[in-house]
Amino acid sequence: MNVPLGTFSLGQDQPFRLIAGPCQIESRDHAFFMAEALSTLCRELGIDLIYKSSFDKANRTSLRAARGVGIVEGLKILADIRAHFSIPVLTDVHAPEQCAPVAEAVDVLQIPAFLCRQTDLLIAAGKTGKVVNVKKGQFLAPYDMKHIVEKLESTGNHRILLCERGTCFGYGMLINDMRALPIMAQTGYPVVFDATHSVQQPGGLGHATGGQREFVAPLARAAVATGVSALFIETHQTPDTAPSDGPTMIPLADMRALLEPLIGIDRLVKQGSQN
Amino acid sequence: MNVPLGTFSLGQDQPFRLIAGPCQIESRDHAFFMAEALSTLCRELGIDLIYKSSFDKANRTSLRAARGVGIVEGLKILADIRAHFSIPVLTDVHAPEQCAPVAEAVDVLQIPAFLCRQTDLLIAAGKTGKVVNVKKGQFLAPYDMKHIVEKLESTGNHRILLCERGTCFGYGMLINDMRALPIMAQTGYPVVFDATHSVQQPGGLGHATGGQREFVAPLARAAVATGVSALFIETHQTPDTAPSDGPTMIPLADMRALLEPLIGIDRLVKQGSQN
Amino acid sequence: MNVPLGTFSLGQDQPFRLIAGPCQIESRDHAFFMAEALSTLCRELGIDLIYKSSFDKANRTSLRAARGVGIVEGLKILADIRAHFSIPVLTDVHAPEQCAPVAEAVDVLQIPAFLCRQTDLLIAAGKTGKVVNVKKGQFLAPYDMKHIVEKLESTGNHRILLCERGTCFGYGMLINDMRALPIMAQTGYPVVFDATHSVQQPGGLGHATGGQREFVAPLARAAVATGVSALFIETHQTPDTAPSDGPTMIPLADMRALLEPLIGIDRLVKQGSQN
Amino acid sequence: MNVPLGTFSLGQDQPFRLIAGPCQIESRDHAFFMAEALSTLCRELGIDLIYKSSFDKANRTSLRAARGVGIVEGLKILADIRAHFSIPVLTDVHAPEQCAPVAEAVDVLQIPAFLCRQTDLLIAAGKTGKVVNVKKGQFLAPYDMKHIVEKLESTGNHRILLCERGTCFGYGMLINDMRALPIMAQTGYPVVFDATHSVQQPGGLGHATGGQREFVAPLARAAVATGVSALFIETHQTPDTAPSDGPTMIPLADMRALLEPLIGIDRLVKQGSQN
Repeated sequence: MNVPLGTFSLGQDQPFRLIAGPCQIESRDHAFFMAEALSTLCRELGIDLIYKSSFDKANRTSLRAARGVGIVEGLKILADIRAHFSIPVLTDVHAPEQCAPVAEAVDVLQIPAFLCRQTDLLIAAGKTGKVVNVKKGQFLAPYDMKHIVEKLESTGNHRILLCERGTCFGYGMLINDMRALPIMAQTGYPVVFDATHSVQQPGGLGHATGGQREFVAPLARAAVATGVSALFIETHQTPDTAPSDGPTMIPLADMRALLEPLIGIDRLVKQGSQN
Repeated sequence: MNVPLGTFSLGQDQPFRLIAGPCQIESRDHAFFMAEALSTLCRELGIDLIYKSSFDKANRTSLRAARGVGIVEGLKILADIRAHFSIPVLTDVHAPEQCAPVAEAVDVLQIPAFLCRQTDLLIAAGKTGKVVNVKKGQFLAPYDMKHIVEKLESTGNHRILLCERGTCFGYGMLINDMRALPIMAQTGYPVVFDATHSVQQPGGLGHATGGQREFVAPLARAAVATGVSALFIETHQTPDTAPSDGPTMIPLADMRALLEPLIGIDRLVKQGSQN
Repeated sequence: MNVPLGTFSLGQDQPFRLIAGPCQIESRDHAFFMAEALSTLCRELGIDLIYKSSFDKANRTSLRAARGVGIVEGLKILADIRAHFSIPVLTDVHAPEQCAPVAEAVDVLQIPAFLCRQTDLLIAAGKTGKVVNVKKGQFLAPYDMKHIVEKLESTGNHRILLCERGTCFGYGMLINDMRALPIMAQTGYPVVFDATHSVQQPGGLGHATGGQREFVAPLARAAVATGVSALFIETHQTPDTAPSDGPTMIPLADMRALLEPLIGIDRLVKQGSQN
Repeated sequence: MNVPLGTFSLGQDQPFRLIAGPCQIESRDHAFFMAEALSTLCRELGIDLIYKSSFDKANRTSLRAARGVGIVEGLKILADIRAHFSIPVLTDVHAPEQCAPVAEAVDVLQIPAFLCRQTDLLIAAGKTGKVVNVKKGQFLAPYDMKHIVEKLESTGNHRILLCERGTCFGYGMLINDMRALPIMAQTGYPVVFDATHSVQQPGGLGHATGGQREFVAPLARAAVATGVSALFIETHQTPDTAPSDGPTMIPLADMRALLEPLIGIDRLVKQGSQN
């Protein structure tokens, strides 16, 4: 099943789409800077882009961590990016009452992994009619995503994306089961691979989540070879100074080198499928 | 650190307190029936009881599963049980705005495992000044509970309980790391062992969570021998017909046989401590 | 089923027996020193002792680690300890051809966890007619131990012990599933809990296995409360200078304080059973 | 580092080599039939082949499972296949004393995963001077393979291959951590991905190991995209009637369709490297 989104659609037989952006909306200027850079890069590489950024980090490890610009300011920035660059925009929602206002500003509502079983949030997101990207909880088996799909479908919304971002493996470590990608694809909905959160090390920095940025590239290649509809990659011009997810974000300057082989593998794997 | 709660307190050197009740508030009559039976049993056994029941099951596996009587009716019933039986009452909260009204009706607010990192919910619960029982997320290492404690302490509330209810172990299976109990106790706060959710098998029934009721007794004995401040045990007169958590709840008629050896082990383990 | 061993027997309704000793046979003098100390302690506490020590460490993490005194010298020492102290002796075997000579010197042959599926080793051990203690592989589910039992039973030997020593949990970490104890007991054979290897951290020291000695006591209490036939505890007068398993062994001077509460819990849990 | 083997070599910048064959040597005729079919296929596809088959299955789940033709007959068959087809041959060893005779008949000695920490076996295998392929134990972290490499290197043998075949993930399930491939490659030695044992479900059939053959293809694509020196794939003309590993082996008739996309991905990923 293909999920239409503006001028393109997401589907298991379509070229992968790129969901990318900095973890947080840091400021209007920073958001425009990042969207400009990513738009240009994707145009050059011939990839369709969905711009991603969060207005609130609602479940930081530590209370002292930065939470973001807030919903009012954040949605204004995202709406302006959508209008200015003519690209679809994605952000995450944390409470049912956020869904309607967020849906006015963005094209894709994302359900965070920890919240993927919260029925009211799923229903509220589904009811907006927008595309909903659900991250598989780190505590969930891929074949259990069918129940989440059913909750969303009950709203009449069939524009659903299912996203792998790692599964619990002992303490302080996630693992990617590449079988999860074809298993989730059995629902018929497009599958997304989140290459940067997958290398998180929960609690790895003591006061914050750590990460293994060096494994983003091999895992992204593996996922694309397995077959995905979209890649989710957080990026930042200087990740190590970013207010969140620094250890996992890819330096903006490295994005081209990361993406080029993925495009080749994707083409090869989907050869023979409709394009 | 001891956490006072009505006529008693919870502490690692106190006899274990029992948090018990049916998973859901099914009706006023059923709630009173259960509270009556548990009060009588605990009086006979010399255990302090905290009555537990949920007004809403917000994260059921399947959309078709029963969600409960709702917050308005549920809180009325819980408040009446508290008044009628003179026992503290516990229920779980799912959104920040629920915390204040819930705090008027009950003595302990419980943070569900999936939501244990949601900062706003923790803060709102902490601000009520009520005792807050946080279930350790199935995706969290026990030593990372210190960050959750810090979020709660930031509200000035130090009446905190930390609850073990199983950790992800492969797909569709939880495991109890008994080391988690002493590790969480290092925070200084009382530790609770949830003996019935610990034997859940997520997704185990296809459309719902399964369970291994036969392991509740050995795991409860193990936890008490390790040292806990409270046991959390869901119970029902006929679990197999209950609207939720049937595969894990203990038949009411079996509670006495389950509890008696636990009391003995608890006394032995805490010998020499203040009583 | 009770497994007779010299003047006592092991069984789920018998008081727990203690399998204890230093990881390696370091020298004749050291072995006699340890056996003397443990014999005296167990006599005072009223526990039956099986003396444990290895003549060869065949699967050390690193090549540079000490392997032991060897089979010829080791078996002589073990046989002399058995004769001198009149206690049963246990050691581990690593190859089928070791079983017959080892069986002449000791009372219990132990199958190491990594080797628990090696059919020829199990058969050779079984054929000696001696008690065989099989450690559950860290890679094995407890319910799969029934196949190992069957391999041993095929030799006509029904003097089998099944030992829990931790299960893989992510990288570099073991976890004890206390459900494994009743599950393995369903075979009808006595179950042993290895409290010191259970707290190993494979590869935790970089060049060697690390450990969390502080969790031996709570895990041993948990296991005894669940119900076991024997406890396996490695001990040493100065663990931190021992040639192997230093991070997990219990200082000899701490053994009494470790064992005393276990005896109380064991009595309580087995009350009503034959003694 | 490249590991020479007959007319080719294995290396992270070389095209992947194929290690393939039926799990067991069933008979001379069957072995020749399989070797003929695989030789022809690999010649047509332009892949270098290493023929794999076992003379003994030393650690079957159940005692009643078939063990194979034995070492004497097995080695004769393997030597004859090597001579007849002019291809290198691989088989696994289970005891130190097998290494020398096996080394006379084959080109690659394989250390089974359960035995990967048995020092004597590693040393004996290394001393033969033959290529040694070590399967990473299901209980081992990939970064701990460096200790195994060191044991082998101590014999002066640097013709080492390191093979990923899955890691414990809960009970009865393996998972492939694709990060393990680049981590093991940091040793400098070629890395092999075993695509068929990786989908085993230990104990999954009750009396035997089950498997998920449908995931061999996506996992193999993922591994090749990550970057490997060789693929290990067991195959059989009718896997479901094979005496071992039926649930995971690939039907011989499906091998071409499995391999073709892998060749494309491999070329793409290694573009720019020496060929």
